[in-house]
Amino acid sequence: MIIAKVVGSIVSTRKNDNLVGSKFMVVEPALGKAQPSERFVAVDNVGCGIGETVLIATGSAARIGCGKESSPIDAAIVGIVDSGTELEF
Amino acid sequence: MIIAKVVGSIVSTRKNDNLVGSKFMVVEPALGKAQPSERFVAVDNVGCGIGETVLIATGSAARIGCGKESSPIDAAIVGIVDSGTELEF
Amino acid sequence: MIIAKVVGSIVSTRKNDNLVGSKFMVVEPALGKAQPSERFVAVDNVGCGIGETVLIATGSAARIGCGKESSPIDAAIVGIVDSGTELEF
Amino acid sequence: MIIAKVVGSIVSTRKNDNLVGSKFMVVEPALGKAQPSERFVAVDNVGCGIGETVLIATGSAARIGCGKESSPIDAAIVGIVDSGTELEF
Amino acid sequence: MIIAKVVGSIVSTRKNDNLVGSKFMVVEPALGKAQPSERFVAVDNVGCGIGETVLIATGSAARIGCGKESSPIDAAIVGIVDSGTELEF
Repeated sequence: MIIAKVVGSIVSTRKNDNLVGSKFMVVEPALGKAQPSERFVAVDNVGCGIGETVLIATGSAARIGCGKESSPIDAAIVGIVDSGTELEF
Repeated sequence: MIIAKVVGSIVSTRKNDNLVGSKFMVVEPALGKAQPSERFVAVDNVGCGIGETVLIATGSAARIGCGKESSPIDAAIVGIVDSGTELEF
Repeated sequence: MIIAKVVGSIVSTRKNDNLVGSKFMVVEPALGKAQPSERFVAVDNVGCGIGETVLIATGSAARIGCGKESSPIDAAIVGIVDSGTELEF
Repeated sequence: MIIAKVVGSIVSTRKNDNLVGSKFMVVEPALGKAQPSERFVAVDNVGCGIGETVLIATGSAARIGCGKESSPIDAAIVGIVDSGTELEF
Repeated sequence: MIIAKVVGSIVSTRKNDNLVGSKFMVVEPALGKAQPSERFVAVDNVGCGIGETVLIATGSAARIGCGKESSPIDAAIVGIVDSGTELEF
Protein backbone atom coordinates (compact mmCIF):
# COMPACT_ATOMS: atom_id res chain seq x y z
CA MET A 1 0.00 0.00 0.00
CA ILE A 2 1.03 3.61 -0.46
CA ILE A 3 1.24 6.37 2.13
CA ALA A 4 -0.25 9.46 0.55
CA LYS A 5 -1.57 12.90 1.38
CA VAL A 6 -5.06 14.00 0.39
CA VAL A 7 -4.66 17.17 -1.69
CA GLY A 8 -8.06 17.73 -3.29
CA SER A 9 -11.24 16.18 -4.61
CA ILE A 10 -13.05 16.01 -7.93
CA VAL A 11 -16.64 16.16 -9.07
CA SER A 12 -17.89 13.90 -11.84
CA THR A 13 -21.59 14.09 -12.74
CA ARG A 14 -21.59 11.88 -15.83
CA LYS A 15 -20.04 8.58 -14.72
CA ASN A 16 -20.34 4.79 -14.61
CA ASP A 17 -23.45 3.77 -12.61
CA ASN A 18 -21.37 1.74 -10.15
CA LEU A 19 -19.54 4.90 -9.11
CA VAL A 20 -22.63 6.80 -7.95
CA GLY A 21 -22.14 7.74 -4.29
CA SER A 22 -18.35 7.39 -4.35
CA LYS A 23 -16.22 10.28 -3.06
CA PHE A 24 -13.21 10.87 -5.33
CA MET A 25 -10.16 12.27 -3.54
CA VAL A 26 -6.97 13.42 -5.26
CA VAL A 27 -3.90 12.13 -3.45
CA GLU A 28 -0.15 12.33 -3.84
CA PRO A 29 2.60 10.06 -2.50
CA ALA A 30 3.73 11.32 0.93
CA LEU A 31 7.17 9.70 1.20
CA GLY A 32 9.71 11.83 -0.65
CA LYS A 33 8.81 14.92 -2.66
CA ALA A 34 6.00 14.28 -5.13
CA GLN A 35 5.60 15.89 -8.56
CA PRO A 36 2.11 17.01 -9.67
CA SER A 37 2.26 14.26 -12.29
CA GLU A 38 2.29 11.64 -9.53
CA ARG A 39 -1.14 12.63 -8.24
CA PHE A 40 -4.00 10.20 -8.76
CA VAL A 41 -7.59 9.62 -7.67
CA ALA A 42 -8.66 7.22 -4.90
CA VAL A 43 -12.16 6.50 -3.63
CA ASP A 44 -12.63 7.34 0.05
CA ASN A 45 -13.50 4.29 2.16
CA VAL A 46 -12.85 5.70 5.65
CA GLY A 47 -14.13 9.29 5.72
CA CYS A 48 -11.00 11.40 5.25
CA GLY A 49 -10.42 15.08 4.64
CA ILE A 50 -8.01 17.23 2.65
CA GLY A 51 -4.60 17.42 4.32
CA GLU A 52 -4.74 14.04 6.01
CA THR A 53 -2.10 11.34 5.56
CA VAL A 54 -3.73 8.13 4.40
CA LEU A 55 -3.09 4.50 3.45
CA ILE A 56 -4.09 3.55 -0.09
CA ALA A 57 -4.74 0.15 -1.58
CA THR A 58 -4.48 -0.25 -5.35
CA GLY A 59 -5.55 -2.80 -7.95
CA SER A 60 -8.19 -5.45 -7.31
CA ALA A 61 -7.63 -4.97 -3.54
CA ALA A 62 -9.34 -1.57 -3.78
CA ARG A 63 -12.53 -3.05 -5.23
CA ILE A 64 -12.75 -6.38 -3.47
CA GLY A 65 -11.35 -5.26 -0.11
CA CYS A 66 -13.92 -2.46 0.11
CA GLY A 67 -16.95 -4.56 -0.87
CA LYS A 68 -17.27 -2.96 -4.32
CA GLU A 69 -16.48 -6.01 -6.46
CA SER A 70 -18.43 -4.68 -9.44
CA SER A 71 -17.21 -1.08 -9.45
CA PRO A 72 -14.50 0.35 -11.71
CA ILE A 73 -12.32 1.34 -8.75
CA ASP A 74 -8.56 0.71 -8.81
CA ALA A 75 -7.48 2.76 -5.78
CA ALA A 76 -9.12 3.28 -2.38
CA ILE A 77 -8.26 5.13 0.81
CA VAL A 78 -8.43 2.37 3.42
CA GLY A 79 -6.85 3.95 6.52
CA ILE A 80 -5.86 7.22 8.19
CA VAL A 81 -2.19 7.17 9.21
CA ASP A 82 -1.81 8.28 12.85
CA SER A 83 1.93 7.94 13.21
CA GLY A 84 4.96 6.01 12.03
CA THR A 85 8.13 4.73 13.67
CA GLU A 86 11.47 5.61 12.08
CA LEU A 87 9.65 7.74 9.54
CA GLU A 88 8.99 11.36 8.72
CA PHE A 89 6.00 12.39 6.66
CA MET B 1 -7.82 6.16 -10.93
CA ILE B 2 -6.08 8.59 -13.25
CA ILE B 3 -7.23 12.02 -14.40
CA ALA B 4 -6.51 12.21 -18.11
CA LYS B 5 -7.32 14.24 -21.19
CA VAL B 6 -8.76 12.63 -24.31
CA VAL B 7 -6.40 13.48 -27.18
CA GLY B 8 -7.45 11.18 -30.02
CA SER B 9 -8.98 7.89 -31.05
CA ILE B 10 -7.88 4.86 -33.01
CA VAL B 11 -9.50 2.52 -35.51
CA SER B 12 -8.82 -1.21 -35.39
CA THR B 13 -10.64 -3.41 -37.89
CA ARG B 14 -8.90 -6.72 -37.21
CA LYS B 15 -9.27 -7.32 -33.47
CA ASN B 16 -10.31 -9.72 -30.71
CA ASP B 17 -14.04 -10.59 -31.03
CA ASN B 18 -14.78 -9.31 -27.52
CA LEU B 19 -13.64 -5.84 -28.55
CA VAL B 20 -16.18 -5.41 -31.35
CA GLY B 21 -18.26 -2.31 -30.62
CA SER B 22 -15.72 -0.75 -28.25
CA LYS B 23 -14.62 2.86 -28.84
CA PHE B 24 -10.86 3.24 -28.34
CA MET B 25 -9.77 6.66 -27.12
CA VAL B 26 -6.18 7.82 -26.77
CA VAL B 27 -5.62 9.63 -23.48
CA GLU B 28 -2.77 11.29 -21.66
CA PRO B 29 -2.31 12.04 -17.94
CA ALA B 30 -3.72 15.50 -17.17
CA LEU B 31 -1.91 16.32 -13.92
CA GLY B 32 1.55 17.66 -14.71
CA LYS B 33 2.98 17.90 -18.22
CA ALA B 34 2.70 14.60 -20.10
CA GLN B 35 5.17 13.27 -22.67
CA PRO B 36 3.80 11.59 -25.85
CA SER B 37 5.24 8.33 -24.51
CA GLU B 38 2.77 8.47 -21.60
CA ARG B 39 -0.27 8.24 -23.86
CA PHE B 40 -2.31 5.07 -23.77
CA VAL B 41 -5.64 3.68 -25.00
CA ALA B 42 -8.79 3.42 -22.88
CA VAL B 43 -12.21 2.11 -23.86
CA ASP B 44 -14.96 4.71 -23.59
CA ASN B 45 -17.66 3.73 -21.06
CA VAL B 46 -19.41 7.12 -20.65
CA GLY B 47 -19.61 8.74 -24.06
CA CYS B 48 -16.75 11.25 -24.08
CA GLY B 49 -15.20 13.40 -26.77
CA ILE B 50 -11.72 14.63 -27.71
CA GLY B 51 -10.55 17.42 -25.40
CA GLU B 52 -12.54 16.34 -22.35
CA THR B 53 -10.95 15.65 -18.96
CA VAL B 54 -11.87 12.17 -17.79
CA LEU B 55 -11.46 9.65 -14.98
CA ILE B 56 -9.83 6.37 -15.97
CA ALA B 57 -9.89 3.00 -14.20
CA THR B 58 -7.12 0.53 -14.98
CA GLY B 59 -6.50 -3.18 -14.48
CA SER B 60 -9.28 -5.68 -13.74
CA ALA B 61 -11.46 -2.76 -12.57
CA ALA B 62 -11.79 -1.63 -16.18
CA ARG B 63 -13.21 -4.96 -17.33
CA ILE B 64 -15.26 -6.00 -14.34
CA GLY B 65 -16.48 -2.55 -13.32
CA CYS B 66 -17.83 -1.90 -16.82
CA GLY B 67 -19.61 -5.25 -17.24
CA LYS B 68 -17.05 -6.58 -19.75
CA GLU B 69 -15.61 -9.43 -17.68
CA SER B 70 -14.55 -11.43 -20.73
CA SER B 71 -13.01 -8.63 -22.80
CA PRO B 72 -9.29 -7.86 -23.11
CA ILE B 73 -9.71 -4.36 -21.69
CA ASP B 74 -7.24 -3.00 -19.11
CA ALA B 75 -8.25 0.68 -19.10
CA ALA B 76 -11.66 2.35 -19.32
CA ILE B 77 -12.97 5.90 -19.20
CA VAL B 78 -15.49 5.76 -16.35
CA GLY B 79 -16.30 9.42 -15.66
CA ILE B 80 -16.16 12.96 -17.07
CA VAL B 81 -14.43 15.32 -14.64
CA ASP B 82 -16.53 18.46 -14.11
CA SER B 83 -14.30 20.25 -11.62
CA GLY B 84 -11.83 19.78 -8.81
CA THR B 85 -11.12 21.50 -5.50
CA GLU B 86 -7.58 22.66 -4.78
CA LEU B 87 -6.59 21.53 -8.26
CA GLU B 88 -5.76 22.96 -11.66
CA PHE B 89 -6.11 20.90 -14.80
CA MET C 1 -4.15 -0.61 -23.54
CA ILE C 2 -0.86 0.24 -25.18
CA ILE C 3 -0.15 1.10 -28.81
CA ALA C 4 3.01 -0.77 -29.75
CA LYS C 5 5.04 -1.84 -32.75
CA VAL C 6 5.96 -5.48 -33.35
CA VAL C 7 9.76 -5.63 -33.61
CA GLY C 8 10.61 -9.34 -33.37
CA SER C 9 9.65 -12.73 -32.04
CA ILE C 10 11.19 -15.32 -29.75
CA VAL C 11 11.41 -19.08 -29.68
CA SER C 12 11.04 -21.00 -26.41
CA THR C 13 11.14 -24.79 -26.57
CA ARG C 14 11.19 -25.56 -22.84
CA LYS C 15 8.18 -23.77 -21.38
CA ASN C 16 5.05 -24.02 -19.25
CA ASP C 17 2.56 -26.51 -20.76
CA ASN C 18 -0.17 -23.88 -21.01
CA LEU C 19 2.01 -21.85 -23.37
CA VAL C 20 2.36 -24.56 -26.02
CA GLY C 21 1.06 -23.18 -29.31
CA SER C 22 1.39 -19.51 -28.32
CA LYS C 23 3.28 -17.14 -30.64
CA PHE C 24 5.53 -14.79 -28.66
CA MET C 25 6.08 -11.40 -30.28
CA VAL C 26 8.50 -8.76 -29.02
CA VAL C 27 6.90 -5.33 -29.02
CA GLU C 28 7.87 -1.78 -28.10
CA PRO C 29 5.70 1.22 -27.21
CA ALA C 30 4.88 3.18 -30.39
CA LEU C 31 3.95 6.59 -28.94
CA GLY C 32 7.12 8.55 -28.28
CA LYS C 33 10.63 7.18 -28.80
CA ALA C 34 11.12 3.82 -27.06
CA GLN C 35 14.34 2.58 -25.50
CA PRO C 36 15.34 -1.10 -26.02
CA SER C 37 14.73 -1.59 -22.30
CA GLU C 38 11.02 -0.86 -22.82
CA ARG C 39 10.52 -3.86 -25.10
CA PHE C 40 8.46 -6.74 -23.80
CA VAL C 41 6.80 -9.95 -25.00
CA ALA C 42 3.10 -10.27 -25.87
CA VAL C 43 1.22 -13.32 -27.10
CA ASP C 44 -0.33 -12.86 -30.54
CA ASN C 45 -4.13 -13.15 -30.49
CA VAL C 46 -4.94 -11.64 -33.91
CA GLY C 47 -2.33 -12.90 -36.38
CA CYS C 48 0.10 -9.99 -36.68
CA GLY C 49 3.48 -9.61 -38.34
CA ILE C 50 6.74 -7.77 -37.63
CA GLY C 51 6.45 -4.05 -38.35
CA GLU C 52 2.72 -3.76 -37.65
CA THR C 53 1.26 -1.30 -35.13
CA VAL C 54 -0.87 -3.15 -32.62
CA LEU C 55 -3.08 -2.75 -29.56
CA ILE C 56 -1.92 -4.62 -26.46
CA ALA C 57 -3.87 -5.60 -23.36
CA THR C 58 -1.93 -6.31 -20.18
CA GLY C 59 -2.60 -7.99 -16.83
CA SER C 60 -5.50 -10.38 -16.24
CA ALA C 61 -7.24 -8.89 -19.31
CA ALA C 62 -4.67 -10.61 -21.53
CA ARG C 63 -5.48 -14.06 -20.16
CA ILE C 64 -9.20 -13.81 -19.54
CA GLY C 65 -10.06 -11.62 -22.52
CA CYS C 66 -8.36 -14.06 -24.90
CA GLY C 67 -9.94 -17.23 -23.48
CA LYS C 68 -6.69 -18.41 -21.84
CA GLU C 69 -7.74 -18.18 -18.20
CA SER C 70 -5.23 -20.82 -17.08
CA SER C 71 -2.18 -19.66 -19.02
CA PRO C 72 0.73 -17.61 -17.63
CA ILE C 73 0.11 -14.76 -20.07
CA ASP C 74 0.22 -11.14 -18.89
CA ALA C 75 0.25 -9.33 -22.26
CA ALA C 76 -1.58 -10.06 -25.51
CA ILE C 77 -1.85 -8.43 -28.91
CA VAL C 78 -5.61 -7.92 -29.29
CA GLY C 79 -5.92 -5.63 -32.33
CA ILE C 80 -4.13 -4.26 -35.38
CA VAL C 81 -4.20 -0.45 -35.42
CA ASP C 82 -5.38 0.82 -38.83
CA SER C 83 -5.28 4.54 -38.15
CA GLY C 84 -5.68 7.19 -35.49
CA THR C 85 -7.17 10.68 -35.35
CA GLU C 86 -5.03 13.51 -33.99
CA LEU C 87 -2.13 11.11 -33.69
CA GLU C 88 1.13 10.22 -35.40
CA PHE C 89 2.68 6.79 -35.04
CA MET D 1 8.49 -10.59 -5.88
CA ILE D 2 10.65 -7.81 -4.49
CA ILE D 3 13.57 -8.04 -2.08
CA ALA D 4 13.13 -5.22 0.41
CA LYS D 5 14.34 -4.00 3.77
CA VAL D 6 11.94 -3.24 6.61
CA VAL D 7 12.57 0.37 7.64
CA GLY D 8 9.63 1.26 9.88
CA SER D 9 6.00 0.68 10.73
CA ILE D 10 2.84 2.76 10.84
CA VAL D 11 -0.16 3.00 13.11
CA SER D 12 -3.65 3.48 11.70
CA THR D 13 -6.56 3.56 14.13
CA ARG D 14 -9.34 4.55 11.74
CA LYS D 15 -9.25 1.98 8.95
CA ASN D 16 -11.19 -0.51 6.82
CA ASP D 17 -12.67 -3.28 9.03
CA ASN D 18 -10.85 -6.00 7.09
CA LEU D 19 -7.51 -4.49 8.09
CA VAL D 20 -8.06 -4.80 11.84
CA GLY D 21 -5.23 -6.91 13.27
CA SER D 22 -2.86 -6.34 10.35
CA LYS D 23 0.68 -5.10 11.06
CA PHE D 24 1.74 -2.43 8.58
CA MET D 25 5.46 -2.32 7.87
CA VAL D 26 7.20 0.32 5.78
CA VAL D 27 9.69 -1.24 3.38
CA GLU D 28 12.12 -0.08 0.71
CA PRO D 29 13.64 -1.97 -2.24
CA ALA D 30 16.93 -3.58 -1.13
CA LEU D 31 18.65 -4.12 -4.49
CA GLY D 32 20.34 -0.90 -5.57
CA LYS D 33 20.07 2.37 -3.65
CA ALA D 34 16.47 3.30 -2.86
CA GLN D 35 15.06 6.82 -2.68
CA PRO D 36 12.61 7.68 0.16
CA SER D 37 9.94 8.01 -2.52
CA GLU D 38 10.24 4.30 -3.30
CA ARG D 39 9.11 3.25 0.17
CA PHE D 40 5.75 1.59 0.51
CA VAL D 41 3.64 -0.30 3.05
CA ALA D 42 3.32 -4.10 3.20
CA VAL D 43 1.31 -6.21 5.63
CA ASP D 44 3.47 -8.59 7.69
CA ASN D 45 2.60 -12.26 7.08
CA VAL D 46 5.69 -13.90 8.63
CA GLY D 47 6.55 -12.01 11.81
CA CYS D 48 9.41 -9.72 10.76
CA GLY D 49 11.22 -6.87 12.47
CA ILE D 50 12.75 -3.56 11.46
CA GLY D 51 16.09 -4.03 9.70
CA GLU D 52 15.33 -7.45 8.24
CA THR D 53 15.58 -8.25 4.52
CA VAL D 54 12.31 -9.67 3.29
CA LEU D 55 10.49 -11.05 0.25
CA ILE D 56 7.37 -9.14 -0.78
CA ALA D 57 4.46 -10.24 -2.94
CA THR D 58 2.34 -7.56 -4.59
CA GLY D 59 -1.05 -7.36 -6.27
CA SER D 60 -3.74 -10.00 -5.85
CA ALA D 61 -1.03 -12.46 -4.74
CA ALA D 62 -0.69 -10.52 -1.48
CA ARG D 63 -4.37 -10.96 -0.61
CA ILE D 64 -5.12 -14.40 -1.96
CA GLY D 65 -1.76 -15.99 -1.16
CA CYS D 66 -2.05 -14.94 2.49
CA GLY D 67 -5.66 -16.08 3.00
CA LYS D 68 -7.05 -12.53 3.10
CA GLU D 69 -9.17 -12.63 -0.05
CA SER D 70 -11.53 -9.92 1.20
CA SER D 71 -8.98 -7.45 2.59
CA PRO D 72 -7.73 -4.31 0.84
CA ILE D 73 -4.12 -5.52 0.86
CA ASP D 74 -1.91 -5.13 -2.22
CA ALA D 75 1.50 -5.95 -0.71
CA ALA D 76 2.54 -8.54 1.87
CA ILE D 77 5.80 -9.66 3.46
CA VAL D 78 5.83 -13.40 2.69
CA GLY D 79 9.38 -14.48 3.58
CA ILE D 80 12.54 -13.52 5.46
CA VAL D 81 15.59 -13.62 3.16
CA ASP D 82 18.42 -15.61 4.78
CA SER D 83 20.98 -15.36 2.02
CA GLY D 84 21.46 -15.08 -1.72
CA THR D 85 23.92 -16.50 -4.24
CA GLU D 86 25.72 -14.12 -6.59
CA LEU D 87 24.11 -11.21 -4.79
CA GLU D 88 24.92 -8.48 -2.33
CA PHE D 89 22.24 -6.87 -0.22
CA MET E 1 5.93 -10.99 -20.42
CA ILE E 2 9.48 -9.90 -19.77
CA ILE E 3 12.71 -11.32 -21.21
CA ALA E 4 15.15 -11.55 -18.31
CA LYS E 5 18.44 -13.11 -17.32
CA VAL E 6 18.76 -15.28 -14.22
CA VAL E 7 21.49 -13.73 -12.07
CA GLY E 8 21.17 -15.46 -8.70
CA SER E 9 18.91 -17.18 -6.22
CA ILE E 10 17.82 -16.60 -2.62
CA VAL E 11 17.18 -18.77 0.39
CA SER E 12 14.24 -18.08 2.69
CA THR E 13 13.68 -20.46 5.58
CA ARG E 14 10.92 -18.57 7.41
CA LYS E 15 8.19 -18.01 4.83
CA ASN E 16 4.51 -18.31 3.95
CA ASP E 17 3.41 -21.99 3.97
CA ASN E 18 2.26 -21.82 0.37
CA LEU E 19 5.81 -21.00 -0.73
CA VAL E 20 7.39 -24.17 0.67
CA GLY E 21 9.10 -26.01 -2.17
CA SER E 22 9.35 -22.96 -4.45
CA LYS E 23 12.73 -22.04 -5.95
CA PHE E 24 13.34 -18.29 -5.84
CA MET E 25 15.51 -16.95 -8.65
CA VAL E 26 16.79 -13.38 -8.90
CA VAL E 27 16.37 -12.03 -12.42
CA GLU E 28 17.08 -8.81 -14.28
CA PRO E 29 15.55 -7.44 -17.50
CA ALA E 30 17.65 -8.63 -20.47
CA LEU E 31 16.67 -6.06 -23.12
CA GLY E 32 18.74 -2.93 -22.66
CA LYS E 33 21.20 -2.41 -19.80
CA ALA E 34 19.63 -3.15 -16.41
CA GLN E 35 20.45 -1.39 -13.15
CA PRO E 36 20.78 -3.51 -9.96
CA SER E 37 17.63 -1.78 -8.72
CA GLU E 38 15.63 -3.42 -11.52
CA ARG E 39 16.33 -6.93 -10.25
CA PHE E 40 13.44 -8.88 -8.78
CA VAL E 41 12.54 -12.40 -7.65
CA ALA E 42 10.60 -14.91 -9.75
CA VAL E 43 9.60 -18.47 -8.87
CA ASP E 44 11.08 -21.08 -11.20
CA ASN E 45 8.39 -23.04 -13.09
CA VAL E 46 10.57 -24.63 -15.81
CA GLY E 47 13.84 -25.72 -14.20
CA CYS E 48 16.28 -22.97 -15.12
CA GLY E 49 19.82 -22.13 -14.06
CA ILE E 50 21.88 -19.01 -13.42
CA GLY E 51 22.93 -17.32 -16.64
CA GLU E 52 19.97 -18.47 -18.72
CA THR E 53 17.67 -16.08 -20.62
CA VAL E 54 14.08 -16.65 -19.58
CA LEU E 55 10.50 -15.55 -20.14
CA ILE E 56 8.72 -14.18 -17.07
CA ALA E 57 5.01 -13.81 -16.40
CA THR E 58 3.92 -11.31 -13.76
CA GLY E 59 0.78 -10.57 -11.78
CA SER E 60 -2.08 -13.04 -11.37
CA ALA E 61 -0.79 -14.88 -14.48
CA ALA E 62 2.19 -16.11 -12.44
CA ARG E 63 -0.02 -17.76 -9.83
CA ILE E 64 -2.92 -18.99 -11.89
CA GLY E 65 -0.96 -19.92 -15.01
CA CYS E 66 1.39 -22.12 -12.97
CA GLY E 67 -1.31 -23.93 -10.97
CA LYS E 68 -0.50 -22.06 -7.73
CA GLU E 69 -3.76 -20.15 -7.31
CA SER E 70 -3.37 -19.88 -3.53
CA SER E 71 0.31 -18.93 -3.34
CA PRO E 72 1.68 -15.40 -2.83
CA ILE E 73 3.56 -15.47 -6.14
CA ASP E 74 3.52 -12.45 -8.47
CA ALA E 75 6.29 -13.42 -10.90
CA ALA E 76 7.21 -16.79 -12.41
CA ILE E 77 9.76 -18.06 -14.92
CA VAL E 78 7.58 -19.78 -17.53
CA GLY E 79 9.97 -20.41 -20.43
CA ILE E 80 13.62 -20.62 -21.46
CA VAL E 81 14.35 -18.34 -24.42
CA ASP E 82 16.22 -20.25 -27.16
CA SER E 83 16.53 -17.49 -29.72
CA GLY E 84 14.88 -14.39 -31.12
CA THR E 85 14.45 -12.88 -34.57
CA GLU E 86 15.47 -9.25 -35.13
CA LEU E 87 16.76 -9.14 -31.58
CA GLU E 88 20.02 -9.20 -29.67
CA PHE E 89 20.18 -10.33 -26.08
